[in-house]
Amino acid sequence: MTIGDAGEFGFIAEITAGLTMPPAVSVGPGDDAAVLAVDGSLVATVDTMVENVHFRPDWVPAHLVGRRAVASAASDINAMGATPIAVLVSFTARPDLDEAWAVECMAGIRAECDTAGAALVGGDTTRGSQLVIAVTVLGQLTTAPLLRSGALPGQVVAVRGRLGWSAAGLAVLSRGFRSPRAVVSAYQCPEPPYGAGLDAVQAHATAMIDVSDGLLADLAHIAVASGVSIDLDPELFDVPEPLQAVAQATGRDPLGFMLTGGEDHALVATFPSAELPHGWWPVGRVVEADEDGPVVLVAGRPWDGPQGWTHFVR
Amino acid sequence: MTIGDAGEFGFIAEITAGLTMPPAVSVGPGDDAAVLAVDGSLVATVDTMVENVHFRPDWVPAHLVGRRAVASAASDINAMGATPIAVLVSFTARPDLDEAWAVECMAGIRAECDTAGAALVGGDTTRGSQLVIAVTVLGQLTTAPLLRSGALPGQVVAVRGRLGWSAAGLAVLSRGFRSPRAVVSAYQCPEPPYGAGLDAVQAHATAMIDVSDGLLADLAHIAVASGVSIDLDPELFDVPEPLQAVAQATGRDPLGFMLTGGEDHALVATFPSAELPHGWWPVGRVVEADEDGPVVLVAGRPWDGPQGWTHFVR
Repeated sequence: MTIGDAGEFGFIAEITAGLTMPPAVSVGPGDDAAVLAVDGSLVATVDTMVENVHFRPDWVPAHLVGRRAVASAASDINAMGATPIAVLVSFTARPDLDEAWAVECMAGIRAECDTAGAALVGGDTTRGSQLVIAVTVLGQLTTAPLLRSGALPGQVVAVRGRLGWSAAGLAVLSRGFRSPRAVVSAYQCPEPPYGAGLDAVQAHATAMIDVSDGLLADLAHIAVASGVSIDLDPELFDVPEPLQAVAQATGRDPLGFMLTGGEDHALVATFPSAELPHGWWPVGRVVEADEDGPVVLVAGRPWDGPQGWTHFVR
Repeated sequence: MTIGDAGEFGFIAEITAGLTMPPAVSVGPGDDAAVLAVDGSLVATVDTMVENVHFRPDWVPAHLVGRRAVASAASDINAMGATPIAVLVSFTARPDLDEAWAVECMAGIRAECDTAGAALVGGDTTRGSQLVIAVTVLGQLTTAPLLRSGALPGQVVAVRGRLGWSAAGLAVLSRGFRSPRAVVSAYQCPEPPYGAGLDAVQAHATAMIDVSDGLLADLAHIAVASGVSIDLDPELFDVPEPLQAVAQATGRDPLGFMLTGGEDHALVATFPSAELPHGWWPVGRVVEADEDGPVVLVAGRPWDGPQGWTHFVR
């Protein structure tokens, strides 16, 4: 059976069956819009995942397609120091898509909502020529938001979560391999460090972003927004064994994966002192920008490898 | 220049240039997520518009593609009796899309946000094989939400806004005509009666929905959710002149446009008395459902024309 056979309302009935709503959600899926209570400021973001652009369907099972779509959006809420509370999903697919695949994908969406602590409160399904999943995540913030613009020279740059694992997974899949399993799993579905954003806020972090396009690319946003430069210390990067193995097998620089690999959705933040919250590890320092403006350096020099991900490049 | 040439960040810079945020929005586009204050309950919905599914690009100018994408989502906020406050846009397009078209489309998105009273607070742009615009609208609600489930037998069913104009526009465009201009314009961009949802709440309406799939199809949602039937009175439908002209030219039933045409985003609601708020007009009555369950009737009988819009049908 395809989702064309099931029809829009049949598919929606299938994916919302048995959903329970937390007390803060007074209206969930099934009316014109969802209604919920927000305790504090509202934080909102949308992130889109497109078949054959952000993932290859033969490399990622349906369940993990759903999980990673939610994870990458919920990570942006984490990066504001906020807590995800609700998710809305726009699901566009070919009418000949197998309904079982679509239901399994939606189950992944529900599972990652649970992991992130958010309720799936609404959505829209429609037909198109390609699978496009746009996920809106709403969060609540009980402190001031942690922006990209607060970094000051002398502060410590630190990371929480994985760097380069997803890129290493993509590298092995691109060569037709399915191992090391750990990096393939990381490519298939990130594990954002939910809650770590709030930890950073409580430790008086001054700027934060999630690493979706690569550490160098995303730190450049902090550098520009804050009017500072950032100098990473390669000695502080302890390249995990699976990344070393992939680098060796593919002839690539192991540190390159960690500096330019995106989609692991780690957090990177700047802190006023070297006393970091649990699980965070230092990677460098904020420095004054020189006359050429804000840059991100590695051991005092520009990195000369590829820099990350560009959405509209063919 | 294409949006591929402009690049993701170039395009985003273009579309966010000169945006101003209302005081309730403390963080707009440009960080990981937007931050805003909500006065009352939060209402949230997402609606997706796909090229060649929801509109033909040769029939709708870029500016109006943007406007109608926002209008159809904001209409769902209206239908809860709430007020739109913020919009997030997921914009997926072919990299060879002309950048001027994309910028004009985003200008339309901004224009309809202004009309609806909402700030464009965030978004995501990515590449794909087809234009897909998913619009999330956030609203605030200072009363209880007006759901689909509160209609009671004896109550008056009333409409605010246009019915059938968009369908009539599509009918003439499908035959290669560009007039009557009024219905073509209605197809190109709906004009939801923003604010009329709140008027209905204040007049103690008991159930409400926006007419996106057609009056019969959308009233069926109220009938099922409320456990009632609805009987429309054809005598109460004053078919506007342009619809009569299109019906005559295309050999279709003029009332059929009003009963089954979607995408005008009128509101339909049930009221406890015949005293209706400004601009609302009665179309029928809520009646007891018989043993066969809730139905929508026209002059006491099932309507025997086509019933509306199905998303996954090929």
